[in-house]
Amino acid sequence: MQPPQTHVDLLERPLFAHLATVRPDGSPQVNPMWFLWDGEKGILKLTHTKERHNYRYIQRDPRVALSIADPDDQYRYLQVRGVVDSIEDDPTGHFFQVLSQRYRGTAGAVLDRDVRVIFTVRPTGFKTH
Amino acid sequence: MQPPQTHVDLLERPLFAHLATVRPDGSPQVNPMWFLWDGEKGILKLTHTKERHNYRYIQRDPRVALSIADPDDQYRYLQVRGVVDSIEDDPTGHFFQVLSQRYRGTAGAVLDRDVRVIFTVRPTGFKTH
Repeated sequence: MQPPQTHVDLLERPLFAHLATVRPDGSPQVNPMWFLWDGEKGILKLTHTKERHNYRYIQRDPRVALSIADPDDQYRYLQVRGVVDSIEDDPTGHFFQVLSQRYRGTAGAVLDRDVRVIFTVRPTGFKTH
Repeated sequence: MQPPQTHVDLLERPLFAHLATVRPDGSPQVNPMWFLWDGEKGILKLTHTKERHNYRYIQRDPRVALSIADPDDQYRYLQVRGVVDSIEDDPTGHFFQVLSQRYRGTAGAVLDRDVRVIFTVRPTGFKTH
């Protein structure tokens, strides 16, 4: 499933996505995250660690939503609804470094690489404004 | 319940909050919203309409979460988890105008005032970074 061409720039630019997940009691939580958009495969990838709540929450319920606003026009935004299709280890921290390069323009040693994981989100729907 | 003093500015400034709610099938959704922080009462108020999905979703499950990032430092953010305690009509559109003034610096006639409502969110938890 591909995003609307009018808003694909919001996936390509190094913007923060506000990631919503569902907690075990069924209530939502949301926080800003780095992500990488793979336009060829039509998927988003996020770096995470096994030590954060979302790691458990997503294993229990893999449904997520992401909200990305254009910092140059906050009324322009993209919502991605999707499912975390896979959680892979990132034992060298390589994927974290890819995102660090994208967002910070630099990438050092990944001290927590032992617990780093990669979430792959397969979109199931897009909403734009 | 009061927010950490270190991050109360994120509630006081006219920033967008990414509001997460839960759909009837239990999956999350999230989108950017205007809000007003009432520091005395310790509540957030949002303008909405009866014609949007969230109006139904919140009546079914009033638990919400909001993520507010500092545009000057995206790594600094506040998450508010809470419950929508009341939904009131805004028949004159006055509350919409208050938010329009806060965010746009101007407030005109509210053409959809017949369907405008005010959500009051009572925080149940804060998380900062």
